[in-house]
Amino acid sequence: MALMTGEQYEESLRKLNLEVYMFGKRVENPVDDPILRPSLNSLKETYVLAQMPEYKDLMTTKSHITGNEINRFTHIHQSTTDLMNKVKMQRLLGQRTAACFQRCVGMDANNALYSTTFEIDQKYGTNYHERFKKFLQYVQDNDLTVDGAMTDTKGDRGKAPHEQADPDLYLRVVERREDGVVVRGCKAHQTGICNSHEVLVMPTIAMKEDDKDYAISFAIPTDTKGIKLIIGRQSCDTRKTEGGCLDCGNCTYGGVEALTIFDDVFVPNDRIFLNGEYDFAGMIVERFAGFHRQSYGGCKVGVGDVLIGATALAAEYNGAAKASHVKDKLIEMVHLNETLFCGGIACSAQGSATKSGSYIIDLLLANVCKQNVTRFLTKSEGLLRTSPEASW
Amino acid sequence: MALMTGEQYEESLRKLNLEVYMFGKRVENPVDDPILRPSLNSLKETYVLAQMPEYKDLMTTKSHITGNEINRFTHIHQSTTDLMNKVKMQRLLGQRTAACFQRCVGMDANNALYSTTFEIDQKYGTNYHERFKKFLQYVQDNDLTVDGAMTDTKGDRGKAPHEQADPDLYLRVVERREDGVVVRGCKAHQTGICNSHEVLVMPTIAMKEDDKDYAISFAIPTDTKGIKLIIGRQSCDTRKTEGGCLDCGNCTYGGVEALTIFDDVFVPNDRIFLNGEYDFAGMIVERFAGFHRQSYGGCKVGVGDVLIGATALAAEYNGAAKASHVKDKLIEMVHLNETLFCGGIACSAQGSATKSGSYIIDLLLANVCKQNVTRFLTKSEGLLRTSPEASW
Amino acid sequence: MALMTGEQYEESLRKLNLEVYMFGKRVENPVDDPILRPSLNSLKETYVLAQMPEYKDLMTTKSHITGNEINRFTHIHQSTTDLMNKVKMQRLLGQRTAACFQRCVGMDANNALYSTTFEIDQKYGTNYHERFKKFLQYVQDNDLTVDGAMTDTKGDRGKAPHEQADPDLYLRVVERREDGVVVRGCKAHQTGICNSHEVLVMPTIAMKEDDKDYAISFAIPTDTKGIKLIIGRQSCDTRKTEGGCLDCGNCTYGGVEALTIFDDVFVPNDRIFLNGEYDFAGMIVERFAGFHRQSYGGCKVGVGDVLIGATALAAEYNGAAKASHVKDKLIEMVHLNETLFCGGIACSAQGSATKSGSYIIDLLLANVCKQNVTRFLTKSEGLLRTSPEASW
Amino acid sequence: MALMTGEQYEESLRKLNLEVYMFGKRVENPVDDPILRPSLNSLKETYVLAQMPEYKDLMTTKSHITGNEINRFTHIHQSTTDLMNKVKMQRLLGQRTAACFQRCVGMDANNALYSTTFEIDQKYGTNYHERFKKFLQYVQDNDLTVDGAMTDTKGDRGKAPHEQADPDLYLRVVERREDGVVVRGCKAHQTGICNSHEVLVMPTIAMKEDDKDYAISFAIPTDTKGIKLIIGRQSCDTRKTEGGCLDCGNCTYGGVEALTIFDDVFVPNDRIFLNGEYDFAGMIVERFAGFHRQSYGGCKVGVGDVLIGATALAAEYNGAAKASHVKDKLIEMVHLNETLFCGGIACSAQGSATKSGSYIIDLLLANVCKQNVTRFLTKSEGLLRTSPEASW
Repeated sequence: MALMTGEQYEESLRKLNLEVYMFGKRVENPVDDPILRPSLNSLKETYVLAQMPEYKDLMTTKSHITGNEINRFTHIHQSTTDLMNKVKMQRLLGQRTAACFQRCVGMDANNALYSTTFEIDQKYGTNYHERFKKFLQYVQDNDLTVDGAMTDTKGDRGKAPHEQADPDLYLRVVERREDGVVVRGCKAHQTGICNSHEVLVMPTIAMKEDDKDYAISFAIPTDTKGIKLIIGRQSCDTRKTEGGCLDCGNCTYGGVEALTIFDDVFVPNDRIFLNGEYDFAGMIVERFAGFHRQSYGGCKVGVGDVLIGATALAAEYNGAAKASHVKDKLIEMVHLNETLFCGGIACSAQGSATKSGSYIIDLLLANVCKQNVTRFLTKSEGLLRTSPEASW
Repeated sequence: MALMTGEQYEESLRKLNLEVYMFGKRVENPVDDPILRPSLNSLKETYVLAQMPEYKDLMTTKSHITGNEINRFTHIHQSTTDLMNKVKMQRLLGQRTAACFQRCVGMDANNALYSTTFEIDQKYGTNYHERFKKFLQYVQDNDLTVDGAMTDTKGDRGKAPHEQADPDLYLRVVERREDGVVVRGCKAHQTGICNSHEVLVMPTIAMKEDDKDYAISFAIPTDTKGIKLIIGRQSCDTRKTEGGCLDCGNCTYGGVEALTIFDDVFVPNDRIFLNGEYDFAGMIVERFAGFHRQSYGGCKVGVGDVLIGATALAAEYNGAAKASHVKDKLIEMVHLNETLFCGGIACSAQGSATKSGSYIIDLLLANVCKQNVTRFLTKSEGLLRTSPEASW
Repeated sequence: MALMTGEQYEESLRKLNLEVYMFGKRVENPVDDPILRPSLNSLKETYVLAQMPEYKDLMTTKSHITGNEINRFTHIHQSTTDLMNKVKMQRLLGQRTAACFQRCVGMDANNALYSTTFEIDQKYGTNYHERFKKFLQYVQDNDLTVDGAMTDTKGDRGKAPHEQADPDLYLRVVERREDGVVVRGCKAHQTGICNSHEVLVMPTIAMKEDDKDYAISFAIPTDTKGIKLIIGRQSCDTRKTEGGCLDCGNCTYGGVEALTIFDDVFVPNDRIFLNGEYDFAGMIVERFAGFHRQSYGGCKVGVGDVLIGATALAAEYNGAAKASHVKDKLIEMVHLNETLFCGGIACSAQGSATKSGSYIIDLLLANVCKQNVTRFLTKSEGLLRTSPEASW
Repeated sequence: MALMTGEQYEESLRKLNLEVYMFGKRVENPVDDPILRPSLNSLKETYVLAQMPEYKDLMTTKSHITGNEINRFTHIHQSTTDLMNKVKMQRLLGQRTAACFQRCVGMDANNALYSTTFEIDQKYGTNYHERFKKFLQYVQDNDLTVDGAMTDTKGDRGKAPHEQADPDLYLRVVERREDGVVVRGCKAHQTGICNSHEVLVMPTIAMKEDDKDYAISFAIPTDTKGIKLIIGRQSCDTRKTEGGCLDCGNCTYGGVEALTIFDDVFVPNDRIFLNGEYDFAGMIVERFAGFHRQSYGGCKVGVGDVLIGATALAAEYNGAAKASHVKDKLIEMVHLNETLFCGGIACSAQGSATKSGSYIIDLLLANVCKQNVTRFLTKSEGLLRTSPEASW
């Protein structure tokens, strides 16, 4: 099958029967909802750019399973070059959208599961890896978007999942059947899930034996019966319903997050990738987190590029572009932004092969990358706030 | 006359005939408007606390003009103790409102004008100081709130007021009459003006002879004919119209800013405090800015106290209060917040008498104080963002 | 008795029979030793400036015991103004010496003991306060320099004094006699002790009952039998013996620290100020530390003034004084330095009376002050290192 | 020819007839001088490790000219892998010596000259590139150490070389002969020159036509007649003459810098690589600086590894290893150190081919790398200073 165009992607979302809620009521048509639309536009760019000749090399690659051309977002990294290209693709998309384009979480989850299922099978003689490859090929063949779902609601951070006052604070298996399992629980602030075809669920922390029912990983369509998406508020969300772009911020692109409830949802066996092997929960978390920390060294840098450009433009509009303190701040923003990029590139260049053959980043450097992202975005904002105008 | 109660203050605002605009149309009843109301509540606390025995010492003092009891917000500082009490009063109000309470700008403007008019008169033989004292006594006697209006819209920062493409980018005198002047222009983002009785206008930068018409300072009632207030947007402003407190942030208190247009407004002679003596424009700006930089060492610290408490409470709710990295961050927030307070106290303790007899802060230390406020608020936010939860 | 002149101070040191060691052998004449001399010069300035009319107000005050004129370094603070004047005196001396002038530790120890002995007596009916006042008057009358000795060698930081493998790692009472006690142990890096007449020993941490023998405070002459001073190395110490000022750094003034061994030293009863009341060890430490943290908000700021001036001079010599990034760094150094001063002033202005009537700083703000000192000195150095010259 | 062993390297230095001065007199035997020896030991490690099987892959490579095995320090980078291996080799040596090992400057200078001479020849039809390759092959064949000499003494930073009051403040050609040129001037603080066989001189800034005589680059033996090395002081240099390791810091390894005077030194034509083509002075500086900024992302990280280990050991010795604030600081030091490594790796991974075919780092990222090195070393020191012990 071929890559989807942006339009085909949009049409594919219309066909989903998602159960989306916002402001206390069901959203009948999420695709055209003015508040949700910018997030769809943002994700759609991952399809649009893959069709543009100038970005094809970065946006697409060959499937190591089928040899077919696929969107890099559905790829399993086969080399350190792949890892670096991932980061460069993310920087490009950050520059195009100045927003979250949401398709990274699933890519990172796929890469975490691909290598971990291989190692579970080695230890337990299970066949999760084959199951996962089948799911992956389906995603690649159909150019689907996958939401990676990790963060549970957690409750008391000092307690394990099974110790919580409410047993459903972490997602768990509540029924085991011949043909699959029934899961109950909730994954918090799921980035881009209402623009995704599949949701790939993972545990959120390392676990011990008592948490066996919580040690579950699987993938199912986002419109599976029992999945309910409650859209989270964003600071100026309703402005998009007021008409016009004034005061809207980024009115074309945006991100979206949903509290995702699994209300006794059935998962068939062939979509289960971890089921009780609690000692591998930590590995999934660590690898997903590692890949996602790497991601920040790309996407946030792209958004940073836009912010720096916008700042330079604002300085020019105000006749302040030649002031030495303004130039210094722009230079410092560039310095911080490129330091983040160094993290993304370095953890990729220092990557290595997993037992499954796929490539993983250097976990320490990926963590360093993410720490700096968290620190430096705030620093850049701080620079903007300490303008002379703000000094009264 | 006595101090106003909170209710009397609210009633006094109802009697004003303000020309307020929001979302493109006139707001008929700003006092009860759900979006504007929290800002009124916030300013009202400056009246409410002045009536409470436990805060009376801090909130009120004796007028150096009449000897009567007045609200400290209408006071001219007579000692370094007065300057320190100002900061402590602001910290208290920050703690009570966790928001901007808007009455500082006028207090700082009054103190800047009081001392500067004295020095203008010494040089030019004018009688601005007596005029200003008369205005001040009126404010003290009636316990009024004054908005201090400084920031012009500016246009090209590299050009002087008279060099701008549009001569009205800085507020200026467009007509000179026997009994006063007519002014035209605009003051940007005027904090609390829709909750104020009077507006005290000042120049926004040091000026030279060619900017003589822009060297104008005066005070007039906020509902003077020709004054139009256009409310600025705040990130979640319309949520206050949705009902309920969920997702509203601080739903009781808040700040407000208005683009304030002076559409050929007449100012009578006895309310003019600078009129063409351009060489004193810089002194007004410097003194106002100095007093206002000091203010930040109080109000932001009070708001910081609330943020630290809220953070500690959130940690407790999540079962994370004993985690060493969480405690470290709370300690760091306290450290940063108290460093700001040190700035507010130190520039006050190192204050000195002006030629008029009133007291002024140490301008260098006040500037240091404000720089740290601008830096450290961002730092505290950065600490909150670098929680382990945020590190994926 | 009158204040000593600088020469009288120097002569008084010659009369001491100190047991000083350096490079493994006894220093017969520490006063004229080329390595030690700069530290004496530095402390001597506290006497020299007290004789200069322009500094008399800051350097001297009236004894609250005798009413006589005394050097402020021997004073017990009687008001927040006294506390602020202490900081200003320290800034002045930092500017004069660009080094440690060593007389603060004793001043801070005196103020800690004065107020704490009063409270011990209130609880236990002891007469430490009177004893201490007698000692203090002797110091004031003779214009002596006191070394405050706190830091024990400590060993395993995770263990209490009595739990250490070697019982002498913390200074302790090894014999109790009718007329006094015999103490054994060691105080590490004692600033200025070889330029001091008396040493005032304090515990170094809060203690419990098992550490009773370690809960001891007293003052004795620095040349008491059994006290041995081993001079600590400083990075370029021997350069002062090479002749000339080139490559010597600050060749006129400097600091000095000595490992001070108490080799079974007898302390007479009238010089003992704490003896087993272990529950007050923490109060002494906290108050001494508080006063000393305040001190840093003065002395380091004075040294900072010299560094900033030297940096500006170096920029000028190199033809770089007008470069915007050089000016920015100088401004930033001023900003950091004045923030430290804010800490020193603010903890003083917010001081309060102790039960004994003497004044103590605000302990929280003093801690904030010291934290910033530790952080910002490094920051200033960092600014110097990031010059373009250093960027290859 | 084969790689030199450590001993052979040492012997080769004994054969040099260097004119070295220290403390105002000639050092007859620099190889065995106790102050200079640690720096020789440090550089010697670059030879020693190249002989050890476990480090051979990193320390040696194949010459792209002869195909022979060479020490990587004499290599011209042929790929991004080469660039990354350079950084990893430097981190290894930093870990081994905890000091500067001095051989990087020449490596970086070689790589700058190799590519730049190619481009000069393209523009001007000169034959510098062949000359340089000949010199390079000689260095590779004999496994020599080259000192890269750039920094002139400069005088007034606001003036060009030819505008200085003293025409010799920048090194220049004072005589032009048939067979070569005579140069006069001085290169400041030349790292490792007394442990080097050859010195490769480069201009220090971009130049214009009037500075033509200053646009000179060449390589000559370090014991060429007229070259005088005046050893710079280091803070504790003479301690190494006191006997024992106590208080010596790093007593085995170290760095060294010499003010290097060129007192009318003759340079033969075949060793001249730039001679008046002033428009290429900037390219040499930029490329050398870029390579050297990359170097810091390796060597300083290795030294950082030692500092972190030493800090952890000190904490353990003091019984403080489990204190959460101590662990936090160690983690932060690791974070900062690995961020520097990210810079070194990233600018290498993003490298590209020059016109000559050799590889060059990404210049922007190399600059970012060096900026962070300069900032973070100070930060790490700051962490060490803010221990609780330091907080009185």
